[in-house]
Parts: sequence; C-alpha cells; structure tokens
Amino acid sequence: MTSTDTRPVAEPTAEEAAALDQLYADFAAAHMAPLWTQRAGLMPETPQPAAVPMLWRWSTLYPLAARSGELVPVGRGGERRAIALANPGLPGTAYATPTLWAAIQYLGPREEAPAHRHTQTAFRFVVEGEGVWTNVAGDPVAMRRGDLLLTPGMHFHEHHNTTDHPMAWVDGLDIPLVRQLDAGFFEFGPDQLATRETPAASRNERLWAHPGLRPIGAPRTPSSPLMAYRWEHTDAALTAQLELEREGHPGVVSPGHAAIRFSNPATGGDALSTIRCEMHRLAPGARSATTRVAGSAVWQVFSGSGVVTVGTQRYEVATGDLFAVPSWAPVTITTDEGLDAFRFSDDPVFEALGLARSTIEKAVDEEQAVDEEQAEKHA
Amino acid sequence: MTSTDTRPVAEPTAEEAAALDQLYADFAAAHMAPLWTQRAGLMPETPQPAAVPMLWRWSTLYPLAARSGELVPVGRGGERRAIALANPGLPGTAYATPTLWAAIQYLGPREEAPAHRHTQTAFRFVVEGEGVWTNVAGDPVAMRRGDLLLTPGMHFHEHHNTTDHPMAWVDGLDIPLVRQLDAGFFEFGPDQLATRETPAASRNERLWAHPGLRPIGAPRTPSSPLMAYRWEHTDAALTAQLELEREGHPGVVSPGHAAIRFSNPATGGDALSTIRCEMHRLAPGARSATTRVAGSAVWQVFSGSGVVTVGTQRYEVATGDLFAVPSWAPVTITTDEGLDAFRFSDDPVFEALGLARSTIEKAVDEEQAVDEEQAEKHA
Amino acid sequence: MTSTDTRPVAEPTAEEAAALDQLYADFAAAHMAPLWTQRAGLMPETPQPAAVPMLWRWSTLYPLAARSGELVPVGRGGERRAIALANPGLPGTAYATPTLWAAIQYLGPREEAPAHRHTQTAFRFVVEGEGVWTNVAGDPVAMRRGDLLLTPGMHFHEHHNTTDHPMAWVDGLDIPLVRQLDAGFFEFGPDQLATRETPAASRNERLWAHPGLRPIGAPRTPSSPLMAYRWEHTDAALTAQLELEREGHPGVVSPGHAAIRFSNPATGGDALSTIRCEMHRLAPGARSATTRVAGSAVWQVFSGSGVVTVGTQRYEVATGDLFAVPSWAPVTITTDEGLDAFRFSDDPVFEALGLARSTIEKAVDEEQAVDEEQAEKHA
Amino acid sequence: MTSTDTRPVAEPTAEEAAALDQLYADFAAAHMAPLWTQRAGLMPETPQPAAVPMLWRWSTLYPLAARSGELVPVGRGGERRAIALANPGLPGTAYATPTLWAAIQYLGPREEAPAHRHTQTAFRFVVEGEGVWTNVAGDPVAMRRGDLLLTPGMHFHEHHNTTDHPMAWVDGLDIPLVRQLDAGFFEFGPDQLATRETPAASRNERLWAHPGLRPIGAPRTPSSPLMAYRWEHTDAALTAQLELEREGHPGVVSPGHAAIRFSNPATGGDALSTIRCEMHRLAPGARSATTRVAGSAVWQVFSGSGVVTVGTQRYEVATGDLFAVPSWAPVTITTDEGLDAFRFSDDPVFEALGLARSTIEKAVDEEQAVDEEQAEKHA
Repeated sequence: MTSTDTRPVAEPTAEEAAALDQLYADFAAAHMAPLWTQRAGLMPETPQPAAVPMLWRWSTLYPLAARSGELVPVGRGGERRAIALANPGLPGTAYATPTLWAAIQYLGPREEAPAHRHTQTAFRFVVEGEGVWTNVAGDPVAMRRGDLLLTPGMHFHEHHNTTDHPMAWVDGLDIPLVRQLDAGFFEFGPDQLATRETPAASRNERLWAHPGLRPIGAPRTPSSPLMAYRWEHTDAALTAQLELEREGHPGVVSPGHAAIRFSNPATGGDALSTIRCEMHRLAPGARSATTRVAGSAVWQVFSGSGVVTVGTQRYEVATGDLFAVPSWAPVTITTDEGLDAFRFSDDPVFEALGLARSTIEKAVDEEQAVDEEQAEKHA
Repeated sequence: MTSTDTRPVAEPTAEEAAALDQLYADFAAAHMAPLWTQRAGLMPETPQPAAVPMLWRWSTLYPLAARSGELVPVGRGGERRAIALANPGLPGTAYATPTLWAAIQYLGPREEAPAHRHTQTAFRFVVEGEGVWTNVAGDPVAMRRGDLLLTPGMHFHEHHNTTDHPMAWVDGLDIPLVRQLDAGFFEFGPDQLATRETPAASRNERLWAHPGLRPIGAPRTPSSPLMAYRWEHTDAALTAQLELEREGHPGVVSPGHAAIRFSNPATGGDALSTIRCEMHRLAPGARSATTRVAGSAVWQVFSGSGVVTVGTQRYEVATGDLFAVPSWAPVTITTDEGLDAFRFSDDPVFEALGLARSTIEKAVDEEQAVDEEQAEKHA
Repeated sequence: MTSTDTRPVAEPTAEEAAALDQLYADFAAAHMAPLWTQRAGLMPETPQPAAVPMLWRWSTLYPLAARSGELVPVGRGGERRAIALANPGLPGTAYATPTLWAAIQYLGPREEAPAHRHTQTAFRFVVEGEGVWTNVAGDPVAMRRGDLLLTPGMHFHEHHNTTDHPMAWVDGLDIPLVRQLDAGFFEFGPDQLATRETPAASRNERLWAHPGLRPIGAPRTPSSPLMAYRWEHTDAALTAQLELEREGHPGVVSPGHAAIRFSNPATGGDALSTIRCEMHRLAPGARSATTRVAGSAVWQVFSGSGVVTVGTQRYEVATGDLFAVPSWAPVTITTDEGLDAFRFSDDPVFEALGLARSTIEKAVDEEQAVDEEQAEKHA
Repeated sequence: MTSTDTRPVAEPTAEEAAALDQLYADFAAAHMAPLWTQRAGLMPETPQPAAVPMLWRWSTLYPLAARSGELVPVGRGGERRAIALANPGLPGTAYATPTLWAAIQYLGPREEAPAHRHTQTAFRFVVEGEGVWTNVAGDPVAMRRGDLLLTPGMHFHEHHNTTDHPMAWVDGLDIPLVRQLDAGFFEFGPDQLATRETPAASRNERLWAHPGLRPIGAPRTPSSPLMAYRWEHTDAALTAQLELEREGHPGVVSPGHAAIRFSNPATGGDALSTIRCEMHRLAPGARSATTRVAGSAVWQVFSGSGVVTVGTQRYEVATGDLFAVPSWAPVTITTDEGLDAFRFSDDPVFEALGLARSTIEKAVDEEQAVDEEQAEKHA
C-alpha cells in the first residue's frame, strides 16, 4: 500500500506553527520526543541499516597487523593485538556490523596474550598458519588452518605462540551487541599462563569430537562442550555433500553449494549462543542462490576465488578476504574455480527473539521467492 | 584483580611514536581500528551504560500530551500521537533505555488511529481512563485502568476512542532493540477501521482468560494467544500473595512485596518475546530488596506513592510517574502508604541470549548478596 | 498390500517337522522364542487392543460404593475405599484400559483417608456432592461438583469428609502404566491429618488461578503448581466457545463441540505428565466428529445425555456414566439435549514417546479423513 | 514407616462376612474391583518386577540361531529369522523385560529379509561378523562388528546378506512397550529389495557423522538423522576417556569406567525416542559403581570378560553373553582383564514421563548413596 509520510495534512497557520514549535521545545525540556516526526525513520518498511556492504582484503589486513606486531606489545590492559574491521557506515565504532565484531589478531614469535574472561562470546577462525595454542578454561587448543575454536562467554582464555614465526587469525565476537545491551562483564585472569602444554588435541575434543557419541561422565556445560572443530572434519563433510549431489542424493543447500553449521553436540543448536558459524563450499562454476536475511553477517574466503555481490556492491574475492553483509542485503556468490568461505552471523539472536526472516531467490532457471519468515527456529 | 589499563608500558621514542601514528592512520584508511586503545571502554568490568536513571512525572507528561492533542492530528504517516520518553544519556534518540521505547499515547474524543503492523513488539498499559478499544488482528480489545494489552509483532492494530473525552496510556515497544538489530519490517493497513464493535471482553480473552484451561479448538499462534490482562485479575493475584504472607505461607517475592509476571498461557513463558511485563505491589511500610539486573527496565507507578532509588538517584514517586533503570543500576523501592507499580524490561532478551545476571541484596536485617547469574532461565 | 501370514511356504516333511519341533523345544529350554510364529500378533497392522469398549452406569456404581461404605472401613493398608472399573478385556486386572485406572471413591460422613504418596499420578473429578477436602502436600483443597483436583506424583495426600453425608467421586490414575513399567514407589504418611482446615480456595489456587499471571515469588515445581480447576471457570470457558461459534468466530473443536484441556500454567502443557484431562461440551443437537486415537481414554458424562458409539458398541448415556475407549476405536457422540463430558487419556504418554497418531472423520456433510499423525506435539 | 497391610481390623461376624462376599460378587458382576484388597500388590513401596534377572549365553544362542537357519526360511509373514530372549518371569511372552525386546537375528548366505515398517523402534548391534547391509528408507547401511545401526519408527527397512557366510546380530526393539500401549502400526513393503548397493558408508553417515557439524541443506527428520554409529568412533571415545582419567582429567563415569551414549546429533538427545543405547568400557581390574535404576535394561558383553551381579544373581560373562536387568535391581560389574559392554534400556521413557529415579552406590572405598531422582533429564 502506498502512503505519504508527511504530516500534518494542512499547512499550519503562523499561530499554529508557533504553538507547535513551543510544544516541541517543551517536549525537549521534558525529555520527551514525538513519534510522528520520526516514525518512518525508526520503523522503516524494511530494514534500512546504517552499516554498509564492505570488503577488507587479506592482502591489506595482514601487513598492517604485521606492522603492529613490531610497534605494539601484547599485554595486560589492551590485552590483545587485534585490529577490528570498522564498517564505514558505523563511524566512530570498530564494528563490522551492528552486532558483530571481526578482527585480525596477530601474535609474534613466542608471544603470549594474558588470560581474561568476559560475557562476550568469541571464536577464532584460522585462514593460515599454525603454532599457537589457545588455552580455554585451562584446556590447551591447537590452532591450525581451517579450524574453528570457540571461547564461550565467561571462559578464561589466553594465547601463546610456541614457534619462531608469527601467526594471525580472525577473531569474531558479539562485542557490539553486548555493548548495545549493556550486558558486558569482564575479568582479568592470572598474569601467568595456566599451561604451556601443546597437545595435538584438546581435552574437550577427546571427550566430544566423536560423531553422535556423548560422554556419559563428562560434566554438563551451559555452552558447547566441544570447542574445537577441525578442518579435516569440515572438509570431509563438505566433500561428502557434493559427492552425494553428484550421485543424485539430497544434502546440498542448492546446486553446487554445500554447507555445514558448527553445532553444540549436546543440544544440536548453534555452537555459540549469539553467533552462528558456518562453512560454505561452492563447486567450480557454481552460483549460490541470492539470499536476503534479516540480520547481519561477515564472511571470510577460506580458499579459491569468486565474485560476490552484496546489495549493489560487487567484489572479486580471494583467500582471506572478508566482507560484511548488512541486514536484508541480497547476497550472491559465483565462482569459476570453486570457493570455500566461512560465514558468521547474528542469526541465533534473531531466532531466539522471534525476529528471523529470510528470502531465498533460486538461480536463474528456477526463479521463485521463498519467504521463510521465522521458519528456521530450533531445528 | 587490579590492573592498570595503560599501554604501551615504556615511553616510545619519537621515531616509534611517528611509526605508531602512521600505523593508526593506515588503519583508519583501511577501515580498521585497534582493540587495544579502546578495550576498556568496549569491554568494561561491569556494564557502563550511557543511559542514565531518569524520572518522568505524569503531571508533566499528561498536559504535554493533551496539548499535542490540540495541535497534532492523528493519521496515516505519523500513525500515532505518541510522545516518547527520551533518556538524556542517549541524546539524539527517543529511547527510554538502549532496548526499550516508552511513550504516552493520547487519543482525543472520537479519534481513530489507523491500522498498521510491524516487527516491533508492543503493549499498552493503562494508568487512567477508559473508552478506547484497540483492534488487534480484528479483535476489539477494551482498554481500562490497570489493564495490560498486547500487540505482538506483525499483528495489525488500530485504536478508536468511542467517547467524548480523551484517553491516554503508556505504549511500550522494543523499537530501540529492533532498530539496533536492523530487524524491523512495517506495513500500513487499511485506512478504514476493521471494526467499531465495543465488546466488554475480546475474543482472545473469551477463549483464553480461564485459569489453566486451554481451548482445544483454538488456532495456534507464535505469540501469546491471550492479549488482554485485566486489572481485576492482577489485583486479585497481588492481594492473595500478601494475604498468604500474613497467613505464614510462601508466595511473595520478599517481605511485603507481591509480584506477578504476565505470561503466555500456551507456554508459561513471557507474554511478549522481547519484553517482560510485571506488576508489583509493596504493602504499606514495605521496602523492596535492592536488586541489580543486567538489562534495563522502565517502571510506572500505578497507585500509591513511595521513594525509589536508582543508582545514586532518589525519586519521590506517585501515580503515573515513570522511571528508567539502566543496566546493573541498583533499585530499591520503599513506601509508607503502599504502592503498585508496573515494570517492563528486556529480561527475556538477556535470558534468550544467555546474558542474564542479577544480584539481590536483601533488606537491612538480612544483609546478604545472592548472585543468580543466568539462574532465571525459562521456568 | 495383501500378505499371507502363514509360513513356511512348503509343507515340511516328517523329518523336517520333527527337527522343527526339537528346535522349538530347545528354544523353550534356552528361554528363547521365535519371532516368526508370533509376529502378526505382536506387531499387528493397526492396534488390536485386548481392552474392549465398556460402559459402567453411575446408577450401578454409586449404590455399590455406598454398600461398601457400610461394610468396609477406610484406613491404613487398603488406604482408600475406591472401587475400580475393570475392563472385561483385561481379566484378572482392575484396569479400565491398559494404561488408565478409574475408580469410584466413597467417603462416609466425617470419615478420613490417611496420608500417603506414590509415583503414580492421580486426579479426582467430582460429578456430584461436596464437603470433602483433599489435602495435597498440606494444602487443603475443597472438592465440589465439576471440579478437577490434581495429585501429581510423590505429593502426600489425604482426604477428610467434613460433613454428615457421604461423598463419592471419580479417581483417575496411571496405575496400569506404572505397574507395567515397574516404575512405582509408595510411602505411607503420618496417621494423623496434616490439617483439618476447610478453606474455600486452596493456596495453590490463590497463587496460580489467575489467567496468564505467574506469581514471581512462588516456588518452582516439577508438576503443575495449580492443582484445582473449578467448575465455574470450566463452564465459563465452554460457554464462551459456543457463543463465539454462534457469532461466527473460531474456537470450537467442530460444529457444536466445545472443549478445553486442563493445563499446567507454568508450561502450557498437560496438567499431569502421564494423563490428559479435558472437558467437552456438545450443544443440543450436536454430533461430534468421529475420532480414532492411538491410545486409550475414559469418559464420564457430567451432565445431559446422549448416545455414544465406541467401535461397534452403542451406549445411551446420562450423568455419571463412564465408558472406556480402547486404542484406535472410533468414537462418536451425539446428543439431543446437550451433554457435558469429562475425558481423560494417555495422550501425553503417546506424545512424549513419539507414538501419537489420530484420525478425525468429520460429520456426514463434510466426509473427509484427516491423518494427524504425530501432529499434536507440545503446542 | 511400618504398616500392616491387612484389613479390616476387626474379625467380621458371619453376617458381615456374608454381606462382604455378596458385595464382592456384585462388584465382579458389575465389572468392578476394590482397591483395598490389592493396593499393596498394585502399588508396592518399591518396584516389584515380575521380570527376573536372567543370563543368556552367546554360546547357546548362536548355535540355536544357526539351526533355525537350516530349518526356517526368511520371508513375508514371519518377516525375520529372529529368536527373542524370553524372560522366565514373564511367562507366555517373548519379552526380555516389560518394555524391551532383544533377539538374535540370523541371516544365511545370500539371504534377504523383505521390507516392512512399523511404529516400533528398532536397532541392530553387531557383536561379530559382517557382510550384511540393512537398507533403511532406501539407504544401504553396512553392518560390521561393534556397529550400532538404527531403525527409527516407521522407516522401511530390509536386510540382505551379500556374502557366502551367515551373519547374526542382536535386534533391540520396544515391542513390549508398544504392545502394552496398543500403539503399534505395521506395514509390509515391496517384496523386492529397494537396492542391492553395498557402500562402505551410508548416506546418513556421509551427511551427519562429522563431529559437531550439521549439514545445512539436509532434510529435517523427527528421529535421529544419523543411523549408523561405527565401532572405530565408539572405541576411540572410550579409549580417550580412560586416557584422560590416567592424565588426571574428568570424563569417566567412575574410576576405570568409561561410557558413551549414542545420541541424535540434531538434538543431543537419545538416538532413539524409547530406547537408550550406550557402550561401556571397564578397564582391567575395575569395578563399576553399584547402580539401581527405575526401569529395565539389557546388556550384551562385546569383548573381554567379567563378573556381573544383578540383584542376588551372579554371572560370569564373556563376549556375546546377554543379561536382563529388571527395574530397581542393583547391578555391579567387575573385571580382571577388562570388558566392553553394550547396554540398552527404557530410560528415555522414564525420563519423558517424569518417572526417572536412580541410586548409585560408589565403590567400597567411597561408600555413599546418591539419590539422583529425576536428575538425568535431557542434558
């Protein structure tokens, strides 16, 4: 339905205008503000995010992180040598989207980052390198290319580089969401590392990284008891989906598009309570469906290359490149050589609050829109 | 643990300072921002809300609303003659807290507000007056003193005043939350009222307002099927709690403090997915426990009077007065004559996202702190 | 698909027959039994209950209960003067169906039944009389015509008749289910009554019998915190549904058929974990849809009269009459003058175990079958 | 509390006795039965199962199954060459416990068992052999030593032996429970095999057997989407638990006792809705805690040997031996050389119905009883 958004209908007299001005001044003095002058901006017909589509190239990020490695020590106070992706549509912040923080963290040879814990939920995703262990609640977790490592809220964590070369990875957190909600608590931990052990597999993996098998004697945890998802499993799962597709069986998201979601094996739900983590694989020559989702996301290309369109923006992307997708912006990915990409989003927040909505437009030869409003609740 | 929040440790040389300046400039050019310079502000040890404690007096609000009734028409575009409470700590917004919108809505004699619907969750709470019906999804709901009326997300709603006198009430919505999440969708409805019927009880009440009784044949709804909570029931429930206390039985929240939560009878959960609604009654001479909650709230005094402290602020409050409670600010209410107050908060958001935390300090003669972190999950 | 259920296909030789006989004898000696000889009986194509449709007339039950009141004392050991309905298809048991126990309990003037508690879930439904209080966990609950009173598992309970006249009611329990599962625990309570108070409303009602209102300070309970459902509310709810139908609005189960389910206000689920309780009202001249449900039920006519068909049985029923419905037996009720009936069933067991299935055949002029297999999961 | 279970208290006169006899006769004629004469038997203070502890030796079962392989064809009607374990305490049935069916199924060289589906939930557990594929909903699943294979309710399934040697395994079903509830539906499938493919991994495994990884595009299923749990994973999980114990970390159930539960990766809950499946490993020299559980179970030794006590029975057990544990019977396992054992039980039924209760008595040097009544609800 069409509607004009201007009011009042009739031109006011000078007396009326003066009275209205006085009313608005009195509102302001009383710390009040009328809805009718701002309704359209506050409650748009579809999301009108301030955040914009944005691409950050790994070839830019990494050298800057390396330079900071030379100039800025890691230690108590600043806590981490992490440089955030700052969305130009959210000036004055260091937010990738209104809910998500994404940063490149850089740890030099033999460096250590001290322990702390906080309400904010965090993960690390490794696009290259290895040799750093992150101790989560005293459980040392190796970080290697392709791995996803969790740091659920209020788990003490610290990092240590056991090698003579630097290592960098991507941190994802819900800092903007927690900041907006005024929900954050933060504690410093001991200045000394809890452990310098370097096991190949963490204890949480040894207990929980067995498909469909729950350790009966393991303690219960409010967040995912599994906190390390290894590339070998992720790769095998994506490979299997594309093989099944070739054999004529279901499993892929859409033609040539395989995807998995990192989940909490104790509940089947998202690995993290406020951030969804997924890995996507497009086969050579594939084109993803065009998807709009209420809520924002950040993607990082893990391998391969392709062309991404986010709203009206078009990016040629390669390994390590990150891009932000504002709420309701249509996203399409195409690739000639094939492409793997990690995606994280605030989808669990939208689902938990009854705000989830999405539209999927299938590829050219199957034009149709599917409105899956609030459909993807807890599976 | 104590920690100094300054870094780097050593005073940089001029050369180092220049290199650092250049690095920060290059960060900015690349749309990057370091964590270490802003960690303390982004991730404080406890919530540091920008929103401040604030009191709005009904004796101020109502006359201003009445003046707007003379100067500003109600109609398509602005949609509602609602004036929001604007927290001084959130300048440039019309938000009571970072997540909650609270407004006084004023409808003149025989006036009508046209239909629309939106993602934002809403309720009306009536502190005085009667004679307006709100049609929610075509179901006319009478509004009377003490009633709570729901408008769950994406339900068309319109209001009409059937009398020759004006009526005002409080609107509560999650506009700030939905705006921040870029989650909002909005649709205009028909310009003509769906119905001008004025039944004493709405159809949803006739089906669902029977204690513990579910209508087997009623359609299922994603939000609460009961959308009107009448004062007679609320009053009876609070009266019973204080009587039980006098008889030596459990039921009150703390000595002299009765309280109920408005709930979805189909699930037992909150009446609304993003806003918790409660009614509290303090007996004459009572003092509430001092409570800190992660998350924000707005209270409105419904009857009686008392003294409220929010953080370092102290307010003498009476019927109709509203006050905002920022996250983690301690709240205490005392009353000589007794006091009823309506409270709404973002508690369900915090619980759904695993962020709930609260501390209750009992009254003077039972000094002790109880940390109920994440304790109040779905009962 | 048609299939012959006989095997082996070929006629065995005498030698083969002997070998087979020996094999079966050896099976028996080893405490083994072949599936193939009993598969059809163990795993029929649709449920083949041993229980049969059965009617018990109140005009028979009540006088027999009254006679037992003269001959049999109430006291420790036997515990209750309750006479169970014994399904003729389940000889040697006192079970109404394979999962449900239904009995008439009779308490003489001033009599008391001593306290005990047990795993078995119980309710009382009152078709006539008043003056008995049942103390559930020390909370005295008045019993009056039309009321449903709960005794969830492991709640101590005792009854006392405060009047000079006898009173009888119907007890429903899951005794057969708990017996079959070997799940039962039982404890005797004190020989003396916990209380002889006779309040009009129990404490649980005073806290919880307010529509949609949860007492914030009330203790949490694993079973329904509301344990008394009063006829005035049930009657009002059923009346409203039929009124809404006459006004053209949804709410009834089918034309002329109103129904409510007794629910736990803290969860919206069934009032009891193993027994569903419902009240049905058929308007004068109405005919219910014909329904088949996997699982069994017992109905009691509360007022009015009608004709019930259960499978091939046809019963003319009036106030107080009880009838058993075996699994998958089609049920239809018609009435000239109108009829209210209480129904209890093992539906929650079937739903919790993923075994729920039902078929509804609409009335003559809308012949169609709706298979709602496993559809009615937790609303 | 002690109580005498006899009544009435006073010796009746001859006249009273006659009146009582007549009353009981009239009860019988009216299909009624008094509670007071049978209360103690119906509602014992603790479970008094008719089922008894029982051991079946693999060395007895297998030869009898092999003999039936020569004498009894597999085919439509009898459907399966399965011989059930018949608990001597449940005469006239072929039930291992009141809720559980356990059978040895034997398939000769190149034999096929035709497709059917049923409400009853089933699994296969393989203690020796390989070469049979079970097609579940058209998905061929290899059966190998140590594997657990699911057949959730209403999934068509068929078996085919692709080799020149026979194979035998254990079937577990909820036939007694479904029979008692009159909940069973059964359908014959096509007489021809859906497929004769023999893939090493089934399609459900290829989609779902990746730890913590959910395939986003896979269809949703009411039961576990993963239907094959391979020994290599089970063995690795148990090995890891005992290693962690040796390193001083949590994970085992009790000293020297590792255990995993087979779970639905989409929910974290039990792999089957009515049957819990677990694998236990006792290290050499270990002794399990003595456990009593409300509900029954069947165990099969998978490897090693040990001594089991069930109630007052003591069994020396070795590979393949099965034993039944009635409700509330204390179980203890000790082993010199170490022992792996598969356990299945009706625990999910008890938990879903609010009937779960258990007691764990720790080993000699830590004597203490822990009552975990209803504690083990869905984690």
